[in-house]
Amino acid sequence: MHMSDRLERLRSSMQQLAADVFLVTRLVNVRYLTGFTGSAGMLLVTDEQLVFVTDGRYQDQSAQQLADAGVEASIEISGTNQREIMSRNVASLGARSVALEADDITWNQQRSFAEGWFPGLELVPTGGFVEDLRIVKDPGEVARISAAAAVADAALASVRPLLGDGVTERRFALELDTEIRRLGATGNSFETIVASGPNGAKPHHRPSERHIIDGDLVVIDFGAMVDGYCSDMTRTVMIGDPSPTQKRMLEVVTAAQQAGVDAVHSEQSARAIDVACREVITDSGWGDAFLHATGHGVGLEIHEAPRVAATSDATLASGFVVTVEPGVYLPEHGGVRVEDTVVVTEHGCLPLTLTEKTTAV
Amino acid sequence: MHMSDRLERLRSSMQQLAADVFLVTRLVNVRYLTGFTGSAGMLLVTDEQLVFVTDGRYQDQSAQQLADAGVEASIEISGTNQREIMSRNVASLGARSVALEADDITWNQQRSFAEGWFPGLELVPTGGFVEDLRIVKDPGEVARISAAAAVADAALASVRPLLGDGVTERRFALELDTEIRRLGATGNSFETIVASGPNGAKPHHRPSERHIIDGDLVVIDFGAMVDGYCSDMTRTVMIGDPSPTQKRMLEVVTAAQQAGVDAVHSEQSARAIDVACREVITDSGWGDAFLHATGHGVGLEIHEAPRVAATSDATLASGFVVTVEPGVYLPEHGGVRVEDTVVVTEHGCLPLTLTEKTTAV
Repeated sequence: MHMSDRLERLRSSMQQLAADVFLVTRLVNVRYLTGFTGSAGMLLVTDEQLVFVTDGRYQDQSAQQLADAGVEASIEISGTNQREIMSRNVASLGARSVALEADDITWNQQRSFAEGWFPGLELVPTGGFVEDLRIVKDPGEVARISAAAAVADAALASVRPLLGDGVTERRFALELDTEIRRLGATGNSFETIVASGPNGAKPHHRPSERHIIDGDLVVIDFGAMVDGYCSDMTRTVMIGDPSPTQKRMLEVVTAAQQAGVDAVHSEQSARAIDVACREVITDSGWGDAFLHATGHGVGLEIHEAPRVAATSDATLASGFVVTVEPGVYLPEHGGVRVEDTVVVTEHGCLPLTLTEKTTAV
Repeated sequence: MHMSDRLERLRSSMQQLAADVFLVTRLVNVRYLTGFTGSAGMLLVTDEQLVFVTDGRYQDQSAQQLADAGVEASIEISGTNQREIMSRNVASLGARSVALEADDITWNQQRSFAEGWFPGLELVPTGGFVEDLRIVKDPGEVARISAAAAVADAALASVRPLLGDGVTERRFALELDTEIRRLGATGNSFETIVASGPNGAKPHHRPSERHIIDGDLVVIDFGAMVDGYCSDMTRTVMIGDPSPTQKRMLEVVTAAQQAGVDAVHSEQSARAIDVACREVITDSGWGDAFLHATGHGVGLEIHEAPRVAATSDATLASGFVVTVEPGVYLPEHGGVRVEDTVVVTEHGCLPLTLTEKTTAV
């Protein structure tokens, strides 16, 4: 991990902020900038200084993690005096204005900052500031996402035979989630979707007590979390022989997904990936059955920038990690979605999801 | 569940709000008031009317769930026009002021409400408004928390023998979490704590690769989630023969926890429960080693009102559901914590956690 690079990038983009100090409150952003993995911590950033505030539970851990990450910060341990500590530090930094993460702090927090913590100082709302830095992944981050993707691949391979045994959606999800942790993940990166038969036509179906039976398409959308980083993949498995329509759905979506992956490269517009997938599906006559956007960034969070959608104005660059996940949903036949997590490179992309896209149990 | 009672209680307490309409944005509060379990929905409440706004994914589900709960609301389905729908509805309700959940909405949301959604209207910050209603559980809620507690009891009984097999903390947590879901829970109510030997001295330890060995105290703090409701329990298991100090720790904490449970009844101060536990531990000479508060409310969330702590000003009433969880943490000997979830009754309490408090594997 390159924490000092990150802070340097943060500081150079902080020039845009009309504020003397930036208060990072969003935990995932604090983690990104400092390596701290606890559940309570805030970071004050100026051009020159760094103050990290946490509570007594994290005294040892924060000292260790910031040192490991090469982050030189003054660490303050707060009890019930958090407000006093923050006020004093902001004052001692000579700040007259404080930039806040306005998509993170609540309205009540903002009110108590304005009235109690930082009276007389100007509060500047910011949005997506650290998130914008997070969009390009460094090699340490790619390695972690790749490890998470590998765990997901291996877990699916391990439990996939159960699909032929008349298992329920819920039971299959449980076995998959358990295997992910057995293989070393700390958990799932989001709640696993197992959507079989008619349930497959609902992109956000939650696992039910429905038994998976012959003739079902089964959409399995899941991911692992390793060292704070997420993976995301979907495979659709056909149980038994597909009907002609199911066969065509599988072919069309697999081709659309490949077209999307093939369109990925540095300096490509995110919109073009969506267009590449959507064209194949629209040409098949199922354009209206592709009910969602094509993908999203993945990293410390399962959904982060950029959006990969018709309305996205993002341009891809090397080191972005995105999903490509077109689907077709037909109430009478079920659903098909295929999704890989890929790293954008100069001339293309590197898939991190390696499970084959064939569809038999 | 008694949704109409809930709305009635909400409306009578809304008199205190200096606002014509109350916009409920916190999903768990929306669920409490309407029975809706989806991931996107907002509720506009006036003295006379109810407008529920969700998106296309939840059109059928919201109609069904609100009908099942006996909630008569006008349901609006939004796409990208959420702002227009909300503005129009608030205008058609004749509102000149809108109360908002200021601990839920972000500063940026408040800004877009002020500038885009509800221009010219007064925005009134509220905090803990629906949460205060949620503090007394109705019989349907107690039944769900009880079911969650029963799943946790059964899961621990099922996997407990593994503790004698040299299992790691992580593996034991995985087996426990898996068993909870096998037994019908949707998942854990929070991340399971398994803290053995020296790790037990850290109240918020996360499961590690440490093998559980003879001579360890093992703190196991976990809960299940059933139909949206949480349970919370802790047991401490001694592996092999306790040292004299460990034996005394177990006796002192078990006695402290019993004293706390014995002190629970309607009209008792929450503070008195904390005092009852703390006295036993202080008398043993370990007052400084009881590092946290005694308990908290449990319901749709794992931590909700009231706090059971020295600084709490809450008074218990019948139907409150709280934890009683004193502990003693000694780096050289490990940790002991014992915790039950109980329902407050007129003259005492009803424990929902039924696992025995003996400590052998």
